[in-house]
Amino acid sequence: MSAKPDIVTAAVLVIGDEILSGRTKDRNIGYIADYLTAIGIDLKEVRVVADDAPAIVEALNGLRVKYTYVFTTGGIGPTHDDITADCVAQAFGVRLDLHPEAVAILKERLAKTGGELNEARLRMARIPRGAELVVNKVSGAPGFWIGNVITMAGIPAVMQTMLDEVAPKLKTGTKLLSETIRADAKEGDVGTELGVIAKAHPETIIGSYPFIDEKHGPNTNIVVRSRDAGKLAAVKAEVETMLVKVRSQLGAAR
Amino acid sequence: MSAKPDIVTAAVLVIGDEILSGRTKDRNIGYIADYLTAIGIDLKEVRVVADDAPAIVEALNGLRVKYTYVFTTGGIGPTHDDITADCVAQAFGVRLDLHPEAVAILKERLAKTGGELNEARLRMARIPRGAELVVNKVSGAPGFWIGNVITMAGIPAVMQTMLDEVAPKLKTGTKLLSETIRADAKEGDVGTELGVIAKAHPETIIGSYPFIDEKHGPNTNIVVRSRDAGKLAAVKAEVETMLVKVRSQLGAAR
Repeated sequence: MSAKPDIVTAAVLVIGDEILSGRTKDRNIGYIADYLTAIGIDLKEVRVVADDAPAIVEALNGLRVKYTYVFTTGGIGPTHDDITADCVAQAFGVRLDLHPEAVAILKERLAKTGGELNEARLRMARIPRGAELVVNKVSGAPGFWIGNVITMAGIPAVMQTMLDEVAPKLKTGTKLLSETIRADAKEGDVGTELGVIAKAHPETIIGSYPFIDEKHGPNTNIVVRSRDAGKLAAVKAEVETMLVKVRSQLGAAR
Repeated sequence: MSAKPDIVTAAVLVIGDEILSGRTKDRNIGYIADYLTAIGIDLKEVRVVADDAPAIVEALNGLRVKYTYVFTTGGIGPTHDDITADCVAQAFGVRLDLHPEAVAILKERLAKTGGELNEARLRMARIPRGAELVVNKVSGAPGFWIGNVITMAGIPAVMQTMLDEVAPKLKTGTKLLSETIRADAKEGDVGTELGVIAKAHPETIIGSYPFIDEKHGPNTNIVVRSRDAGKLAAVKAEVETMLVKVRSQLGAAR
């Protein structure tokens, strides 16, 4: 690969007191991480903030200037603590209006499920001016997309359908390819030699993750990542050669 | 309660490429959230950043001036990608030295488990100058505590033992008490009335969380939180009275 790879980045902003109190365990971060990695977007940062307008606006404005996309989850329901739309509008300095298409979606949904389009439910049709709706096939109430910020629900099934909805429209970059090599050695026994390889290949990302192997005890997964398949294969081979050598030295020392 | 309640706050900084790529699913945020809530520390923010020194240092310096405590997880192992200690030292502007007590702990551990105190393993004894060690009864290598930053391992079992180690030494505040009220109604049907109650009690935190009830379908948990048991009970009663009224109106309308 001679051309410079395209790099597209993202941040996730999780909004909700319930995550910070421990009441709800987040299941969206890992899902979005997997999803973005698979389509060629590098997730670079995640923040979790409370249902607190200044904290949300500050995080939005901090993140949206740094990354290609910011995905928010949570805070777009019908109750007083759902303030994400207000905060996105404030961050972009635009008005928060009732969006006719969102109102129509809610009306259509309520015609099927029953219930009144009351003041609370109308909160879910307040969309920052200039935003596009992100359709939600699971529960009706839409998310939205303004500038580089994509606002999604917090309920995992709803967030996932919204992500499917926006994914085909996202700019994506050259995928970060990844290979996992099982070291069959303790992390401390391979760390020095692995560091030498990492230093020699600064463009390749090498991670080391200890785990407990039911059969052998402490073991290590070495993960090599690169946008270039050739470089990835070369560094993988170098790691494997190193591992053979280290394991044989450890065997001889025992 | 006439005296102003003590409020102690915290942030969690999760460090690791593997969380952002989706390879590893974080299990520490929810655990720490529960733990801190239970002992009277308010978790106000979480950030996840990559194994990238400028990103880690910036997050550390951003968070440590805002909250009583910052807990970091990850990046204190024996490999080249474990750079948390370096970054904490840099954030505090102190040297990163081999800590004699940490070296002794590693030696003692290796005498039992086997293995050499090589360059890689010695990385785990590099501690920012002025920090206290946080003992780790699970795998030996210590975390550390400097200023208001507490650096812990990323492996959940190790992080948990480190948290147990520091918890008795942490300043704690007046606990945020919590009551959950099952609405037996859809969120959109109670949102307007709940908003009125929330507005009337700005010092009490009221959250609304939809869930699917196996028997009845869409349902809602209303969570009321306060540091004052009396106020909590009063607002809980007000919510319950509101729910009886709303459910009876809904029943009459059907």
